[in-house]
Amino acid sequence: METILKSKTKTVTISPENPFVIIGERINPTGRKKLTAELEENNLAGVARDAESQVQAGAHVLDVNVGVSGIDEVKTMIEAIKIITQITDVPLCFDSSKSEVLDAALKLYEGRALVNSVSGEEEKLKKILPLVKEYDAAVIALPLDDTGIPKEPEKRFAIAARIVEQAEKIGIKREDIIIDCLTMTLSADHEAAKLTLETMKLVQKELGCNMSLGVSNVSYGLPDRDVINAIFLVAAIENGLTCAIIDPTKEETKRAIVVSELIKGRDNDCLKYIQLFRNKVRRSI
Amino acid sequence: METILKSKTKTVTISPENPFVIIGERINPTGRKKLTAELEENNLAGVARDAESQVQAGAHVLDVNVGVSGIDEVKTMIEAIKIITQITDVPLCFDSSKSEVLDAALKLYEGRALVNSVSGEEEKLKKILPLVKEYDAAVIALPLDDTGIPKEPEKRFAIAARIVEQAEKIGIKREDIIIDCLTMTLSADHEAAKLTLETMKLVQKELGCNMSLGVSNVSYGLPDRDVINAIFLVAAIENGLTCAIIDPTKEETKRAIVVSELIKGRDNDCLKYIQLFRNKVRRSI
Repeated sequence: METILKSKTKTVTISPENPFVIIGERINPTGRKKLTAELEENNLAGVARDAESQVQAGAHVLDVNVGVSGIDEVKTMIEAIKIITQITDVPLCFDSSKSEVLDAALKLYEGRALVNSVSGEEEKLKKILPLVKEYDAAVIALPLDDTGIPKEPEKRFAIAARIVEQAEKIGIKREDIIIDCLTMTLSADHEAAKLTLETMKLVQKELGCNMSLGVSNVSYGLPDRDVINAIFLVAAIENGLTCAIIDPTKEETKRAIVVSELIKGRDNDCLKYIQLFRNKVRRSI
Repeated sequence: METILKSKTKTVTISPENPFVIIGERINPTGRKKLTAELEENNLAGVARDAESQVQAGAHVLDVNVGVSGIDEVKTMIEAIKIITQITDVPLCFDSSKSEVLDAALKLYEGRALVNSVSGEEEKLKKILPLVKEYDAAVIALPLDDTGIPKEPEKRFAIAARIVEQAEKIGIKREDIIIDCLTMTLSADHEAAKLTLETMKLVQKELGCNMSLGVSNVSYGLPDRDVINAIFLVAAIENGLTCAIIDPTKEETKRAIVVSELIKGRDNDCLKYIQLFRNKVRRSI
């Protein structure tokens, strides 16, 4: 199944047959004091910097979240899109909890964007799915509903299936729905990663959709987080993950993806791997 | 499916439901000049040292290979077993290309050993399988035959299936056959790892056997080999690998296994992971 994203000039295809797609996560003020302060002052220098550095590090798509309380998020989102599209031509993923922000972004954007996200909550289904349909976008679906995030893979899968069903009902194609099976935190529940991977197996088998994950949550509260993130990422790729919202400027994460592509037979003559190694050596000199 | 190995006092169960089993690879003179020289002089100090350090580092089983040309391999194997069983009580895996060495080892050993290995070669099937049956051992099966190692997963799988069939014919149970789908070298063929993983998918689905791999061959000739080995190991575990012949004293390999157990939900309160991290910090002080 192919999810196709487009900027004005560039197409990115997400599918098990294509190279793994990196959605850069850094344009997001959550937990980032400096970026939050900048956005509060209507200063988009940090957004521009993060756009450039992530594409440089290999991001194929950029997630754009400018949600800071007290600002005009619609206005800031529009300015962010204008600046980012001047810097890079990778397709964008619009990330907001407010449907009016997503609406404005999709209206402005010349391309085929990804919407982050819809869930099984009634309000979300009602507001987000029609936007996805209207602007012919793709969407990330989160298997949680008004009762919360189910622990059991079968229940989490059932919500994903219901979102797909509702989307298909209004004419959104299944290939345009990317399921994010939700990464919970190992330090809170030692079965957290296992439950996510089991949900992924069900989605892969029963729905066949592309899948994404916000990976880093898995290691919250533990030491050496990058190591856990990298290995969880590789395990998820083997269970059908075709894209992920990650920070490509983190060496361990980037390396896991390059090596994963290598062992999938997608790195002719191991050239990308050797390039990664050379860059590391160059940095260390 | 459970493969049960035993020493006089210890039982190790290999199965998808049990913790991943590390078979320590270091007691093997191949490519190790010092160990080769020692074995030529009938000096088993290196064997003793490697037994101790590997069990210390977390090996659950030890592979024992004393194959050096020009020595009495039967005699050396018997002496090695005597010394190793004085040092540790982990079950052993007897590794030799000579059936008389395996015969002598199995005759002496008080336990249920693993035999490394049988292949689809006529000579091997005829000589090794009856030994496995006679001593009630388990065996590692390699899907290669008199024509060599097939590149195609389907053909490699067919040899594995034929070995299982021949073994079952003489009364060896399927659960006592561990398939090693053969790790080829990425630097020689960029699809090498992919073909191994695809063969593993077939074995998992059609035979349900436990699987092992000698992992490190995958990265031969490439830089930063440990990184590739670790990620290939994680991908293989997601495709049904339940044990591996590896060097547990290598930090990157050990870490990949500990994190893999963590994300499989087998590390209560993340205690083993945190212990690994503490040991690292302690070493660095």
